[in-house]
Amino acid sequence: MMMYFKRVVLKLFTRRMSSVTLKDVRDARERIKDSIHYTPVLTSTYLNTLSGHSLYFKCENMQKTGSFKVRGALNAVRSLTVPDPVIVTHSSGNHAQAVALAAKLSGYKAHVVMPENSLDVKKNAVLGLGAQVSYCTDKEKSRQEVADQVLASLSGKGVFISPVNHHDVIAGQGTIAIELLEQVPDLDVIVVSVGGGGMISGIAIAAKGINPNIKVIGAEPTAADDCANSLEAGRLIPNQDESPQTICDGLLVSITELPWSIIRKSVDGVIRVTDEETIAAMRLVFERLKVVIEPSAACPLAAVCTEKFKELFGMDKSLKIGIVLCGGNVNLLTLSNLMSRVATTDK
Amino acid sequence: MMMYFKRVVLKLFTRRMSSVTLKDVRDARERIKDSIHYTPVLTSTYLNTLSGHSLYFKCENMQKTGSFKVRGALNAVRSLTVPDPVIVTHSSGNHAQAVALAAKLSGYKAHVVMPENSLDVKKNAVLGLGAQVSYCTDKEKSRQEVADQVLASLSGKGVFISPVNHHDVIAGQGTIAIELLEQVPDLDVIVVSVGGGGMISGIAIAAKGINPNIKVIGAEPTAADDCANSLEAGRLIPNQDESPQTICDGLLVSITELPWSIIRKSVDGVIRVTDEETIAAMRLVFERLKVVIEPSAACPLAAVCTEKFKELFGMDKSLKIGIVLCGGNVNLLTLSNLMSRVATTDK
Repeated sequence: MMMYFKRVVLKLFTRRMSSVTLKDVRDARERIKDSIHYTPVLTSTYLNTLSGHSLYFKCENMQKTGSFKVRGALNAVRSLTVPDPVIVTHSSGNHAQAVALAAKLSGYKAHVVMPENSLDVKKNAVLGLGAQVSYCTDKEKSRQEVADQVLASLSGKGVFISPVNHHDVIAGQGTIAIELLEQVPDLDVIVVSVGGGGMISGIAIAAKGINPNIKVIGAEPTAADDCANSLEAGRLIPNQDESPQTICDGLLVSITELPWSIIRKSVDGVIRVTDEETIAAMRLVFERLKVVIEPSAACPLAAVCTEKFKELFGMDKSLKIGIVLCGGNVNLLTLSNLMSRVATTDK
Repeated sequence: MMMYFKRVVLKLFTRRMSSVTLKDVRDARERIKDSIHYTPVLTSTYLNTLSGHSLYFKCENMQKTGSFKVRGALNAVRSLTVPDPVIVTHSSGNHAQAVALAAKLSGYKAHVVMPENSLDVKKNAVLGLGAQVSYCTDKEKSRQEVADQVLASLSGKGVFISPVNHHDVIAGQGTIAIELLEQVPDLDVIVVSVGGGGMISGIAIAAKGINPNIKVIGAEPTAADDCANSLEAGRLIPNQDESPQTICDGLLVSITELPWSIIRKSVDGVIRVTDEETIAAMRLVFERLKVVIEPSAACPLAAVCTEKFKELFGMDKSLKIGIVLCGGNVNLLTLSNLMSRVATTDK
């Protein structure tokens, strides 16, 4: 009897903490593909010449809700076995909308905790998707406290979906790599922004599962470089600064345990980029690809243009690099204010 | 002998003035497809709800040189049988770059006549593609005069490629429709901007050749509505205003004979849109599709949102409408100045 109990506990524990596999990502893909965009991959001769490589831009800025986040949220919601759950999360940004849409598509209720000072447009988007919204202060601690109160009020119906530290969310984000490698099968490198680490860990699992020789490189703002620091030190070191000063509002959070357990084994390096480098990359994407991206989405192109990247990969023109443009939720005023800080490359 | 002579003249005349066929467009497609982007088609649930139809946006703003013009220019250049020609054209805008690139790709020289007051960035783009540039004044007449001088100086090597009034240019632009109907085979309507009429006539030939039931609708700024006026009157009526006042800088020119001969038979209507409607459509495309388009490319979405469109097609949600986003060559300052004139719909 004790043996049986142990096995059950072990199994539950293993399921909870087990890493994500390529099969999990493939299953996620089947689970979500009818409801998301198969986003295009763009190329630019100008940007190839500039970078010295062949670049392939995966346009998750054109994904539903304007970011990749809907992949993980939808996979998590569709993996639930609880009958008629209420999906609870906290987020001021892209994950809030992703969860609201994922719940709506599944016919479930969602309850999103947002900081009071979130932009009205973001609050309205979440409300517009039919979710209930509760407000917290802008402190990290307040978010979880209010979410816990919401969960407690739901008499066991509430299910919390973390934006990053969640097996099914990571598996969902990994579907980006499955599509990208269908679109460009012989990529040598994939470069991905790192915030909480959900996207890069899912992509690393999927990409290296498909092709063990592919390199996966992170791109991080210098002001919130916990992933770079952690990889260099060989242990998880969260950002020391509670309010990192960077324009990359999607990359402020630190990586957490589950993504770190994947990143430490599967990510080949992280390149730090300054905000000025990020803005220059935004401008290149705007002018050369004719697409709109938010600052957090510009870090990978900025990283590919650094000396550090040249040190790692040389100047091999035939090197094929996938770049994930992870989101496009930026308003025009912000965009034009930021881009006015760097010179045009326009024709 | 006289009969033979007549037949030859007739044949030459027929070739010169003959209309474009679906076969010409298919041949053009084979001629150019290795050198152009197969541009993506995007959709948006928000824009479907707003318009009341299912919209499919063909992103020619992401085409090489930032507009569809390279299709026609490349087809014309690759159709030449003269050995080692020098390609001559006049243009201040997208056609200038398209011809310069088409010549470069074919290993030919290009000589482009541009108004002195063209933007430096445009001049530099054409020069950067290896073309020679001569300058004229900003009068329509001056352009052709200088182009004629250039042609005269080239001792028979020069070949003039008109931006619109040219069989092979029209066939090249028609390839947009072949791709779009591969991507969305069951479209009911295609809506296209009208400037000189090259794009809409090529698209009408190709689309109706593939599916005779498809409707092709033009979108024109009210200030340069010569195509609408011509269709209503049943005869070619060029714009009376020499300098039409509209933000759609790509749609200022009047339609000419060859496109008109196609449009009068194959285009089902033209909808006039105001600049304010065009700016609102640009904003929607920026915020909802996350792509950058120039004003001239926003007219079709503006047209679909008009009362006139509802009169023509009702509010059938299942109606599938292809919308050509024909170019993305706009600088950020222009874009943000224009878009500040209408309210955001942003999340």
